[in-house]
Amino acid sequence: MTVSYDGSGYSGYQKQGGFRTIQSELERAITEINNNKPVEIYSSGRTDKGVHAINQKIHFDLNMDISLYNLREAINSKIPDDIYVKSIEEVDEDFHARYSVIAKEYIYIINLGEFNPIERNYVYQYNKPLDLVNMERALQYFVGEHDFSSFTKPDDSKKNFVRNIRIVNLKKHDNDKVTITFVGNGFLRYMVRNMVGTIIEVGEGKRKSEDLYDIISSKDRTKAGIMAPACGLYLKDVYY
Amino acid sequence: MTVSYDGSGYSGYQKQGGFRTIQSELERAITEINNNKPVEIYSSGRTDKGVHAINQKIHFDLNMDISLYNLREAINSKIPDDIYVKSIEEVDEDFHARYSVIAKEYIYIINLGEFNPIERNYVYQYNKPLDLVNMERALQYFVGEHDFSSFTKPDDSKKNFVRNIRIVNLKKHDNDKVTITFVGNGFLRYMVRNMVGTIIEVGEGKRKSEDLYDIISSKDRTKAGIMAPACGLYLKDVYY
Repeated sequence: MTVSYDGSGYSGYQKQGGFRTIQSELERAITEINNNKPVEIYSSGRTDKGVHAINQKIHFDLNMDISLYNLREAINSKIPDDIYVKSIEEVDEDFHARYSVIAKEYIYIINLGEFNPIERNYVYQYNKPLDLVNMERALQYFVGEHDFSSFTKPDDSKKNFVRNIRIVNLKKHDNDKVTITFVGNGFLRYMVRNMVGTIIEVGEGKRKSEDLYDIISSKDRTKAGIMAPACGLYLKDVYY
Repeated sequence: MTVSYDGSGYSGYQKQGGFRTIQSELERAITEINNNKPVEIYSSGRTDKGVHAINQKIHFDLNMDISLYNLREAINSKIPDDIYVKSIEEVDEDFHARYSVIAKEYIYIINLGEFNPIERNYVYQYNKPLDLVNMERALQYFVGEHDFSSFTKPDDSKKNFVRNIRIVNLKKHDNDKVTITFVGNGFLRYMVRNMVGTIIEVGEGKRKSEDLYDIISSKDRTKAGIMAPACGLYLKDVYY
């Protein structure tokens, strides 16, 4: 199923203890529909606390005589209105929302204009100008296959940190907002927010765009910039 | 001062009992800054529960040796982040945020596309197509000086219901959203939401655009359509 959610009221996607999470709300709803026989769901990946999703993809197994239309209606009627199931379709037995992913698209939105209280949870309120030309230049260093250790949690030491970023794009809108898009075969934890935070430091003139080469090569989290806030980040699409 | 706020967490602008309101948050902050000597504030008008403001105008008297810059910083540091003082300027003794108003501008935003949980508190989630051509036609009937009794609370029987609407405009955006703009010398309680609700019924084909003539002439609230939800409404500007 394709699910959109406002992450601002949640402790992230992933189920954890008594916290309010997207996964637990959806599992509770689907389990109820399944006559309280527990159903586990699998997403394309977790999103962190405060991060939003436009088209998160989730799969689950359900052995039940119900139309996809009615199932969708039933789930939407049982979840809070800050989560919404946009569509449900049947998939092959071997499809897995996480392991079948070919690429993911994230967008990050920054407001360079004055503080906007109405969008405080949905757009990073940077509220100052940035050198977008240099930011765009710096962004290009991310394209291709790299070890992204500099942009993830340093203690995640057992994983493979190589990811392939295929598309980066920076777009300035008329309303003083900037959208940065990343498409890649996968993203490490905090990777997009750490990339954006580093790019912002280029936009502030604290770093040069060429510095990105050394930052990436160092494979050292302490060489990159600070992490940008969660509120500006959206999981936009997942490709299979 | 010019103030923007996200109305979704408030019981409206106006102070009332123990409820969380915009006025009470601002008065509390300014009173604190004024060494706890009570300060009362006066807005261009109240906004109802759930209604937002982009540029609400508010005046107050403050006898204090503080720069406008520091005053603004101080207020913003003492109010929740869903309210924001954009600017403060000194005004003449005879200026009154409410009585000096020449015109007000409201916008109402409707989403004709699929339900968007991220914007559920900021855009009316109508989520179906509407006949925008007929809606635009119907809107024109509001322009000019009319008695707007059909579009306000029927029990407000002692007031003058004549208002002058100068500009109406309907704009379709690329993203399936529609913005309806109203500029007028004043608006009665619920007037914009009742006008929008009635126009939507034209867009649904339940009423003809020409019906607006009779609805306005009747001065009868029961002849108009239902009230559109608060979340789509923004007080955009106040003109003096």
